[in-house]
Amino acid sequence: MSKLVIVGTVAFDAIETPFGKTDKILGGAGTFIGLAASNFNVDATVVSVVGGDFPQEYLDLMSNKNIDVSGIEIVKEGKTFFWSGKYHNDMNSRDTLVTELNVLEHFNPVVPENYKDAEVVMLGNLHPAVQMSVLNQMSTKPKLVVLDTMNFWMDCALEDLHHTIKHIDVITINDEEARQLTGEYALLVAAKKIQEMGPKYVVIKKGEHGALLFYNDNVFYAPALPLEEVFDPTGAGDTFAGGFTGYLAKTGNFSFENMKTAVIYGSTLASFCVEKFGTERMQNLTVTEIHKRLGQFKSLTQFDIELT
Amino acid sequence: MSKLVIVGTVAFDAIETPFGKTDKILGGAGTFIGLAASNFNVDATVVSVVGGDFPQEYLDLMSNKNIDVSGIEIVKEGKTFFWSGKYHNDMNSRDTLVTELNVLEHFNPVVPENYKDAEVVMLGNLHPAVQMSVLNQMSTKPKLVVLDTMNFWMDCALEDLHHTIKHIDVITINDEEARQLTGEYALLVAAKKIQEMGPKYVVIKKGEHGALLFYNDNVFYAPALPLEEVFDPTGAGDTFAGGFTGYLAKTGNFSFENMKTAVIYGSTLASFCVEKFGTERMQNLTVTEIHKRLGQFKSLTQFDIELT
Repeated sequence: MSKLVIVGTVAFDAIETPFGKTDKILGGAGTFIGLAASNFNVDATVVSVVGGDFPQEYLDLMSNKNIDVSGIEIVKEGKTFFWSGKYHNDMNSRDTLVTELNVLEHFNPVVPENYKDAEVVMLGNLHPAVQMSVLNQMSTKPKLVVLDTMNFWMDCALEDLHHTIKHIDVITINDEEARQLTGEYALLVAAKKIQEMGPKYVVIKKGEHGALLFYNDNVFYAPALPLEEVFDPTGAGDTFAGGFTGYLAKTGNFSFENMKTAVIYGSTLASFCVEKFGTERMQNLTVTEIHKRLGQFKSLTQFDIELT
Repeated sequence: MSKLVIVGTVAFDAIETPFGKTDKILGGAGTFIGLAASNFNVDATVVSVVGGDFPQEYLDLMSNKNIDVSGIEIVKEGKTFFWSGKYHNDMNSRDTLVTELNVLEHFNPVVPENYKDAEVVMLGNLHPAVQMSVLNQMSTKPKLVVLDTMNFWMDCALEDLHHTIKHIDVITINDEEARQLTGEYALLVAAKKIQEMGPKYVVIKKGEHGALLFYNDNVFYAPALPLEEVFDPTGAGDTFAGGFTGYLAKTGNFSFENMKTAVIYGSTLASFCVEKFGTERMQNLTVTEIHKRLGQFKSLTQFDIELT
């Protein structure tokens, strides 16, 4: 089993969907990634920052999942990063209502000493220079670095992003962002251009349309499970990344073949995440439930053709 | 091997895409379905109507693929149905520039006598009352009836559509149309509602995002092959339907398991169709090419998970 360093926001979210709305609840990329990865019993730490207003029970919730929280700095006099958003009826688009960076504005991630030799690093969506600073703290070169990013950094910090992704192995990005980063509409072409920028593996997330994994000339497609209801999409992409990385950290096998399975695990966990508000569904997820859903993924996509 | 009756337009298309434009070329749902089905050496007839302006070479092209064209009525004094459209840059939407119904306006399909006992009927996109008239001509009840339709008929002939789909086994429909027909956003729910309307099997086409097959509580997902370039999407949906139906007619096995394979064949043939303008790519397609691409579909989606 590998050690896993996760860097990402730990935050308050207030969410409105056609099905209801929440007050401030637990959110943040680091939280979703950590909770997803915790299903694989990896030795994971979340590196983040919160304010004095962050409840101890949320930290305990992570600790109880065997997530090391010593890398979550608590700025007593500060306030926790807060995001509020409202989803449209189709659940595929949303408006950001509030973004209060608070303690995140001066976030300077510090990797705990005993995780500086971690084999796997998951860089959640943050300023690419902040992501890079985490890599620079590692005492040994990680065997696998996964990076998630978004269009915001392409608009505001493209040069930093180009620098950071030279040093990573896998990028997870959504379809529109892949198009923005490369200027290419066809995802096959966009993925090739991104591979030339650094990461050997490119994962393009397409929301309800699933995810694509690219490696050299190989492509693998994992559909999203068709669901009766998407209750709240918040954190689905991060949960995907956490499931993907957690599975790879657990197995220590970073081959393309094993990454296919990792993509399926990521999609499986994301399909649970959207069933309830925020992290609620991820807090009480059993191995039996995960295995049952993996079986559904198998029957969803597996077929048998005899080529004569 | 089953006999296959295909009803659908045989037409002239003029197409403009970001990659170029064509004069009037061979098009029409019946044409694309027939050409796709011809890859399975089935005994197929296309029931349609053309004008005196329709070139004999186009009819010969179909005959040379062993498609019976005796069901294509030639109205000497009439003009062939003409459609012209322009695709937007993303290739996912298009504007119709011209629709000249011409001989299609009074189309009264007549199934050739020796095909009235066909086991399989493919009702291409047409007025649902016209589709029904084909079913009414069959001397024996077909073992499998597949119907394709579109939003236009939901707007203009919903009652007829509801009547016709009571008598079919499989409907192929795109995602937006499935939502319009049922008022349900989630495709899983929409598919269930459509099943209650008649067809036991529902195929929802999602273009570049693939296709879903629903049967009772079972779902199967076939991705579209990621392509470097979609040159011209015209006819892709009909080619899918033709590949799907042709494979089923060839095998005579209408189980859910075999329909999965049929969906893969349909997706495979559609992936060729979009590579060139109109029917060009479908006119010269070899078994070797098809099998090679089926192999790509397999590696695109097949994975191995041991559930412990």
